[in-house]
Amino acid sequence: MDFFFEPNGIAVVGATPEPYHGGQYLVTNLSLGYHGPIYPVNPKYHEVLGLKCYPKVTDIDGPLDIALIFVPAQAVPQVLEECVMKGVRGAIVESSGFAEVGPEGKMLQDRCLAIARKGGLRIWGPNCMGYIDTSRRYVFSFIIPEAWKELMNPGHVSLIVQSGLLSAGFITTLMANKTLGLAKVCSIGNKSDVEETELLEYLLKDPETKVVALYLESFVKGRRFWELAASSNKPIVVLKGGKSALGGEAAASHTASLSGNHNLIEGVLKQAGIHQADDFFEMVDVARTLEKDFYLQQPPHGKPRIAILSYSGASGIVTTDHMEKYGLTLAHLSPHIQKRLEELSPSWMPVKNPVDYWPAMEKYGPVLTYKHAIEALHDDPEVDGIIVHLFAGFGIWFLNMEEIMGEIKTPRKPILFWLIGHEKGREPTRLTLEREGWPTFSEIHRTVRVMASLFEYKGRKSIHSKISPFDFINSTPLRERIHHADEQGIKILDEHESKKWFKAMGLQVVEEMGIKNLDEALKAADRLGYPVVLKGIIEGKAHKTELGLIRTNLWSVDQLASAYHEMLASKIKPKSFLVQPMLKSDLELIVGTLRDSQFGPSVMLGLGGIWTEIYKDTVFRLAPLNQEDVLEMISDLKGQALLNGYRGLKPINTESLGDWLIKLGGLALNFEKIKEIDVNPLLIVDGEPIAVDATIILQ
Amino acid sequence: MDFFFEPNGIAVVGATPEPYHGGQYLVTNLSLGYHGPIYPVNPKYHEVLGLKCYPKVTDIDGPLDIALIFVPAQAVPQVLEECVMKGVRGAIVESSGFAEVGPEGKMLQDRCLAIARKGGLRIWGPNCMGYIDTSRRYVFSFIIPEAWKELMNPGHVSLIVQSGLLSAGFITTLMANKTLGLAKVCSIGNKSDVEETELLEYLLKDPETKVVALYLESFVKGRRFWELAASSNKPIVVLKGGKSALGGEAAASHTASLSGNHNLIEGVLKQAGIHQADDFFEMVDVARTLEKDFYLQQPPHGKPRIAILSYSGASGIVTTDHMEKYGLTLAHLSPHIQKRLEELSPSWMPVKNPVDYWPAMEKYGPVLTYKHAIEALHDDPEVDGIIVHLFAGFGIWFLNMEEIMGEIKTPRKPILFWLIGHEKGREPTRLTLEREGWPTFSEIHRTVRVMASLFEYKGRKSIHSKISPFDFINSTPLRERIHHADEQGIKILDEHESKKWFKAMGLQVVEEMGIKNLDEALKAADRLGYPVVLKGIIEGKAHKTELGLIRTNLWSVDQLASAYHEMLASKIKPKSFLVQPMLKSDLELIVGTLRDSQFGPSVMLGLGGIWTEIYKDTVFRLAPLNQEDVLEMISDLKGQALLNGYRGLKPINTESLGDWLIKLGGLALNFEKIKEIDVNPLLIVDGEPIAVDATIILQ
Repeated sequence: MDFFFEPNGIAVVGATPEPYHGGQYLVTNLSLGYHGPIYPVNPKYHEVLGLKCYPKVTDIDGPLDIALIFVPAQAVPQVLEECVMKGVRGAIVESSGFAEVGPEGKMLQDRCLAIARKGGLRIWGPNCMGYIDTSRRYVFSFIIPEAWKELMNPGHVSLIVQSGLLSAGFITTLMANKTLGLAKVCSIGNKSDVEETELLEYLLKDPETKVVALYLESFVKGRRFWELAASSNKPIVVLKGGKSALGGEAAASHTASLSGNHNLIEGVLKQAGIHQADDFFEMVDVARTLEKDFYLQQPPHGKPRIAILSYSGASGIVTTDHMEKYGLTLAHLSPHIQKRLEELSPSWMPVKNPVDYWPAMEKYGPVLTYKHAIEALHDDPEVDGIIVHLFAGFGIWFLNMEEIMGEIKTPRKPILFWLIGHEKGREPTRLTLEREGWPTFSEIHRTVRVMASLFEYKGRKSIHSKISPFDFINSTPLRERIHHADEQGIKILDEHESKKWFKAMGLQVVEEMGIKNLDEALKAADRLGYPVVLKGIIEGKAHKTELGLIRTNLWSVDQLASAYHEMLASKIKPKSFLVQPMLKSDLELIVGTLRDSQFGPSVMLGLGGIWTEIYKDTVFRLAPLNQEDVLEMISDLKGQALLNGYRGLKPINTESLGDWLIKLGGLALNFEKIKEIDVNPLLIVDGEPIAVDATIILQ
Repeated sequence: MDFFFEPNGIAVVGATPEPYHGGQYLVTNLSLGYHGPIYPVNPKYHEVLGLKCYPKVTDIDGPLDIALIFVPAQAVPQVLEECVMKGVRGAIVESSGFAEVGPEGKMLQDRCLAIARKGGLRIWGPNCMGYIDTSRRYVFSFIIPEAWKELMNPGHVSLIVQSGLLSAGFITTLMANKTLGLAKVCSIGNKSDVEETELLEYLLKDPETKVVALYLESFVKGRRFWELAASSNKPIVVLKGGKSALGGEAAASHTASLSGNHNLIEGVLKQAGIHQADDFFEMVDVARTLEKDFYLQQPPHGKPRIAILSYSGASGIVTTDHMEKYGLTLAHLSPHIQKRLEELSPSWMPVKNPVDYWPAMEKYGPVLTYKHAIEALHDDPEVDGIIVHLFAGFGIWFLNMEEIMGEIKTPRKPILFWLIGHEKGREPTRLTLEREGWPTFSEIHRTVRVMASLFEYKGRKSIHSKISPFDFINSTPLRERIHHADEQGIKILDEHESKKWFKAMGLQVVEEMGIKNLDEALKAADRLGYPVVLKGIIEGKAHKTELGLIRTNLWSVDQLASAYHEMLASKIKPKSFLVQPMLKSDLELIVGTLRDSQFGPSVMLGLGGIWTEIYKDTVFRLAPLNQEDVLEMISDLKGQALLNGYRGLKPINTESLGDWLIKLGGLALNFEKIKEIDVNPLLIVDGEPIAVDATIILQ
């Protein structure tokens, strides 16, 4: 891929000298930073902006690695043919009118891709804004030159953006606001060939990139993306567009991408240690703060302990409200630090976190007091991070932030600022703080959200970097059975058979006896003990409850007999039956696997029955899992308290539950034929999970 | 209260000619707008800023309605004594050092209040920033004059802010940003006397105020506040500080206010049609948009139908994701409107909502296309509101928004703008839009949140304006019983007795028989039919399950007998027993009442058992309720689907459930002695609620 990033020779197909035209901006942008050969291509001109213009790509002489293509969509295939002929290595197609506009455009895009694949040409785009490298001042994009010429602010956040146009408006806004220091910006559009995963891999190795932020509507190679993220120590932030059902609908009309199961994607990204954002500026705010490399100490009881320094009680309180929402807690200040703070605070104003330091500020002025308080809080071992409220303007036109922050020693704990005031005071304060490496925000909720995000994967990246291959039990018999089922066209393995496999894998399933008549049923019940459950089995049918094929709580011979007769008399006469003891369970879980189109085999854990359906209390992770994933899945359940020894019940054996999840994940990973596994319910009896019903669905 | 708002004569106690001092700003601010007599008071000076200065308030001659007090806290009582002597009607105490700093300050504050109450003087504050009236240019506050002199932007949003200092920083920021048009700003500080409810009542009648926004940490007269809000048609927005447990802790150290049960407050504010915000700028963004009086048509299926006009697919998708979260939906454009939009869109770009109009903009320029599209969408009867994405800067330095929006006819549907770009282009665009009455926002999530807020109480205000007194059943016997219990010092009415009252009120309770020995128990079980429940009753004990006093699912004589013997043999030997049939229920609810310290008698509905505790699925409203409140409570439950006929179960009879909630609320309202009522579980059998256990707790 290096040729895209450090090309030797660039053709601009669709170059023009006409002002206010993308084809002109492309050439201008190159001239302003790229020092290799530039070849405008357009049969209408002999010269463009002082450069020789070629009628066709094939007419170019000289080294030529990539072509920037900005001609009408219909003309693109022909240009690509020429690129192939000329031996061009990569084409950045910035024209639109492809898959994003419907089936016809998709066909055109596929034609382009076929030409490229055949000719060994890589395509970036189409429908994209190309590429920017701030440190080299490379702008391979038709954005307007004045949007970046004076405003480029090199830094260490790289962006990958699946959006043709937002990238321009949004990224030029970021540049104009000096919001963040950018390293590389990749606008990948319809990503027909080059996609986010390949670029992520490149950027994770790029020495100028410290953080990667991505706006994506789909994951082309989800599993590889996940592996890359999980094994990298560089922070990654993802804004996934089309997360909601409604947004997915909107996405489908856009870049023709799949939006996927939101719940699954959330779990998968979390598992890989990827920060998630919900809005564009939020993504940027998280990324630019991660870039600062703050020192994150491990809070002893899990929740990061935050000190708030404020000039107002109210803003301290509202900050605290948001902290609870985002899983942060108020630091209890160390006594010696509290004393230091009290040195400047009048005796009638007790110092407590949130620190309302207004009386001190009134007496000693803002510089002395902010400096004193921020240094004291930064020194406090009980403080993991600090949120400072700052007002600049009207009476505080100039706040010497260099003086205030100048003596904060490295390693720096995160100190984030909520900054308001008249822009004449606020803007210089903001820019000074940002330059000195202290992020500022204009709203409290965002300040808190970003603080929480910093600590999200504290200490996790290293653990997850080892994705161990799953050491699976001997599975030859299952392989044969699946092969056999496949030959017979059977798509659903019934509960009896499914549970047989689980049992063979060392997982606990309910005792059960297959019976053929009432006599056998009664004998089975006698052996298993009343109350019992009677189930009718019909091959290829998974939903027995809805079909009336499950009768629970049968306490006597009479009840069992009448249940049996009723089932036999029903329309769907079952071919075989099972008798099971009626387990007395404390809790009902659901576990299973599904094969996601973007990410592959994934494992689900949920609270069972209506819990799953009504409260949507399910969690997903990709297989293979380790026990740490399992514990995290449990703690992500809204109803996790139910598993931890609720109301005097025995806490669930997380090892046994882990065994289930890890082994099911292994099954799904090892047998491509398995489309879904559904163990529902997985009852918890005395802390141990026991499968009572299950289905394996083949594809 | 008029004397605070239109005073004839103002004393400034603590006036000084010294620059950079609040006592000087107070006089300067008055001089700049107030045309009545101003009397500086300070024994150190004979003159302050050209005005005669008096040694004491009692020395003043001339009309004198109010005093602004800005002297050290310790000196305030003496000043108030003088005010009383002089016949001053109101004192705005802007000094701090009172209840907000601890018990000593609280004592001082109480002393001040006692002086005022005795002397017929009203106190505003202490620890406040006073009052601003933008249309009269009254600034009764020590904020710095340059923060408002040139920046005051009269409008129709009034603020009540319980915060001494944030009001200054925050409100001057709003003024500087020209974010909203203000009518009156009341900073009420510790609200020792004048509090939010009295001011709300005043502002609801104020012709200059169209919307009231409040930052509050407590409600001094919660019930009256609620009644006022519910019976007014002016929109009210509340940011409640200290909502979370953590935030409540922070609040306790601040203005010494109660923060209350968050869940209850949410329900109560919703019931009164009050918009709720979570952050300062969010509060302002909601308020300034409500002020615009947009025409809100009633969406036919409940969810407001929003059209998105964008220059980017990605931002359309992210907007849609947020819309789902906030209960909005994508409008299906009318065919004739779609045709109108397609006039400017190339044939290869199908028009669909979200409308990605970039190709049209590229061809026809932004002014023509935005104008065309916004007018078309505004004309569409299928569209209730429009979110427009706008970029201004780099190539679009000037967007003629007057031309674009000029022909939108009244009544105006809400059209909200997400605006980004270089500030040189963005700021003039923003100010033009705001001036023309079209709100702009800098983040997508906020734009969507505000749009949702507009429709929140569509058509509700009028219904809730009638708070009907509760027409209660004849309750003399209950009154006697409560009186009797009170005399005996009984605090808990046991389940048998509690249910007797519910039954007398026409509410359905489980059949039950009191028994004294095993023989009676067996007879009762015979009559009621097995399986049965055996309960031991111990006077004054509410939590029977934890004490082992409930044995369910007794299927036979043997099981009943052994349960009876076990209970008798237990440590807590019950004095009496109940036998009840074991009801087979579809669902378990919990209903009850509690007497909130701020709002009074309130009614709770929740999903029963672990649902309540784990998923915290409970909803509160104030009594008296009407059937509409009941339906809204049900729809506010996260698990509401369980009540609406889940999995083929009979839907719950909402009339019967309403009967329970309305009557319990009536009980709580009519009997002050009732502290709590707890009906748990209220089982749903065949759609009908039946109380199985209940307690009435007296105070």
